[in-house]
Amino acid sequence: MAEWTRVAATLAEKIIAHACQRDSVSPGQIVTASLDLLMMHDSGGPRRVASRLEQLGAKVWDPDRVVVVSDHFVPATDLESAEILALTRRWTQQAGVRHYDMLGICHVVLQEGGHVQPGMFCVGGDSHSPSGGAYGAFMIGVGATDITGALVTGELWLKVPQTVRVNWDGALADGVSAKDIMLYLCATLGMGNENQAFEYDGPAVRAMSMSERMVLCNMSAELGAETGMVSADEKTLAALVEAGRPFTGDIARWQSDSEAACLAEHHYDAGTLAPQIAAPHSPANSRAVTEYEPIHIDQGYIGACTGAKLSDLHMAAKVLKGRKIASNTRLLIAPASVAMTRQAAADGTLEILTEAGAIMLPTGCGACAGMGAGMYSAGEVGLSTTARNFKGRMGSAQAQVYLGSPYSVAAGAVKGYLCDPRELLAEPA
Amino acid sequence: MAEWTRVAATLAEKIIAHACQRDSVSPGQIVTASLDLLMMHDSGGPRRVASRLEQLGAKVWDPDRVVVVSDHFVPATDLESAEILALTRRWTQQAGVRHYDMLGICHVVLQEGGHVQPGMFCVGGDSHSPSGGAYGAFMIGVGATDITGALVTGELWLKVPQTVRVNWDGALADGVSAKDIMLYLCATLGMGNENQAFEYDGPAVRAMSMSERMVLCNMSAELGAETGMVSADEKTLAALVEAGRPFTGDIARWQSDSEAACLAEHHYDAGTLAPQIAAPHSPANSRAVTEYEPIHIDQGYIGACTGAKLSDLHMAAKVLKGRKIASNTRLLIAPASVAMTRQAAADGTLEILTEAGAIMLPTGCGACAGMGAGMYSAGEVGLSTTARNFKGRMGSAQAQVYLGSPYSVAAGAVKGYLCDPRELLAEPA
Repeated sequence: MAEWTRVAATLAEKIIAHACQRDSVSPGQIVTASLDLLMMHDSGGPRRVASRLEQLGAKVWDPDRVVVVSDHFVPATDLESAEILALTRRWTQQAGVRHYDMLGICHVVLQEGGHVQPGMFCVGGDSHSPSGGAYGAFMIGVGATDITGALVTGELWLKVPQTVRVNWDGALADGVSAKDIMLYLCATLGMGNENQAFEYDGPAVRAMSMSERMVLCNMSAELGAETGMVSADEKTLAALVEAGRPFTGDIARWQSDSEAACLAEHHYDAGTLAPQIAAPHSPANSRAVTEYEPIHIDQGYIGACTGAKLSDLHMAAKVLKGRKIASNTRLLIAPASVAMTRQAAADGTLEILTEAGAIMLPTGCGACAGMGAGMYSAGEVGLSTTARNFKGRMGSAQAQVYLGSPYSVAAGAVKGYLCDPRELLAEPA
Repeated sequence: MAEWTRVAATLAEKIIAHACQRDSVSPGQIVTASLDLLMMHDSGGPRRVASRLEQLGAKVWDPDRVVVVSDHFVPATDLESAEILALTRRWTQQAGVRHYDMLGICHVVLQEGGHVQPGMFCVGGDSHSPSGGAYGAFMIGVGATDITGALVTGELWLKVPQTVRVNWDGALADGVSAKDIMLYLCATLGMGNENQAFEYDGPAVRAMSMSERMVLCNMSAELGAETGMVSADEKTLAALVEAGRPFTGDIARWQSDSEAACLAEHHYDAGTLAPQIAAPHSPANSRAVTEYEPIHIDQGYIGACTGAKLSDLHMAAKVLKGRKIASNTRLLIAPASVAMTRQAAADGTLEILTEAGAIMLPTGCGACAGMGAGMYSAGEVGLSTTARNFKGRMGSAQAQVYLGSPYSVAAGAVKGYLCDPRELLAEPA
């Protein structure tokens, strides 16, 4: 293993060096790396690449390293969607890809299946693919053209990113979550952090569940970063055991060296972070909820890969238990996977959510991708746990969509206006 | 009350006579009746009538007798839907209509709100409006043009229908339901029973829940009938008490006279009825499930006003408990109201359904109306609890959609092919 310790390196650099069979790599180098895993979904996947592979007469380099997930067009709400789903299933079978799923959002399917493991070099055909970095892997998102090349060659070229270390000391207050951290970072660091790998660490990050760590990595895409990562620890190992795919390597190998050079190192105090709300039309328009007027909310939306995992449903339930949605507000909840819906049914969460008056939606990318239930009409005001509030993304360009944590969205739905979830959590329901 | 007993009359005739303030009416007469209730939804309602009323400078005759329900375009899956929902809400407020709902399918909203009462003369802007007849009312479905006139005048002209009595003796076997009765009747009596009011009675009907009686009345539309009815009894009264709107009249007044003339009277034995399956592309193509080959099913669908009420979810759960959906089959379930979803969460039904692998969809007319999640692609085979399997109604015109009860759809999803639910119910899970 001597070659791995020769040069002090960050986690990202170690994984990339290993994937291109070099002793070391340096930020700024252009390298070609071998893929451990390729994920694509129904939107950017087979319907975009099938005909190209056919024209090329090319095959998938290794069907066992490919995961295909139908999550954008499920459940089909029109004939075009139904045909895309059918094409996705058909192509996947013909290509010999065994890992096909339509019961969860792609990033959550990877999580639940234990597909992403520490030290892996992975690519996904979705901009939020950095989610996989929560497992101590290097995973980036690319478009359908790059996916096509990667599918055929099993390789991907990239410019080695610089690493930015972000440490969160202390502990998050009750009612504050990973989503608040990322909205705060978007406002503080902006969205133009290109060719940077964000590595999150510190006591507040180590205290987080894997699902919450995934929120950090997922929304690194909103920072404009190449990817986000959290190096593996005991929680990572336990999650992989639970997923039925225990990690057989040594996680000590997949840690940044403390002396490794990085572009920047930030330290923040988790204990003083207030719930953050992003105003339209950018995650970078975030500030503390306490700085907002009590704006009326027409629709709360708890959904998407970054806002509707079981941990998110639990946050919402904590606020909603024993309370009712305000009369002129609706709350839509689209769990991030069918398995998580099942767990929420079994542990009583669904009962709390529906008793409060929430409307349950099917699993899928849904309104976050502008494709499912929950579109906003012109003039409507929304508060959403999704990653992005770009203009027109969730319906009308004349809608006003705010972003917040599941705590904040649930609290806003109860009050009918933007409010501080910590206040609701502090008082009896 | 002498005028009501002067001429022997059927329930339909008594209600119509009362609604047009006559002593009696005869089948074939054209009369104009006053409305006790008008229901319209987001598809055929405000978006169709708003501009007409504006052009006319006319107002709603009595906003307190109008119920508006958004069920076709909820939750909005595209911008056009979101705008229709916004228009529906806006018009309803401006028109002074207090009874607005978006948390259930219109016929179920009427049921849950206790809006339809014995002896009422009602109209709905939906073809399945005969559902209200389960409450001993006369309720018919009309299009947007007739709804416009009814909204302005509070009246509706109609030709008094002939009554057909349908008696079901004995008791339905376990695994056989009201849906099987209606599929059987569609096959036996055909779909051309125009200008007829079907009145259901007999021990098997009296043993049914109100939700099951609604299936009989609802699918009378599939018989081509003017409406379906079940005269009120203690169950009707209890349901109205539960809905918070106890009936203050005398249900003895709203019964058919035994000597009243009717077009036909049928007697069937419920005990010998097998589960029925309708082959593509008509409910009239029904025959016993035992007469079918084990056709593979791509998608089971438990949804719509006639197939996803709490009683339907209970039937499905009875089959699914401790079992799993077959690997090449998916099962989608769209509960008929948010309140029923809540009840299913509280009583453990959702846990059973999701544990089996069912995918929960939001409440709404959904795929039944070709508008929500669950569209079929070309070549796919479906089995659905909905009322109609007309070609292309649920997606591709090249899809093959079969109809069956919630028992049959759940059993088909477990086996992956058309099968007799009685066999699954008879064996341990």
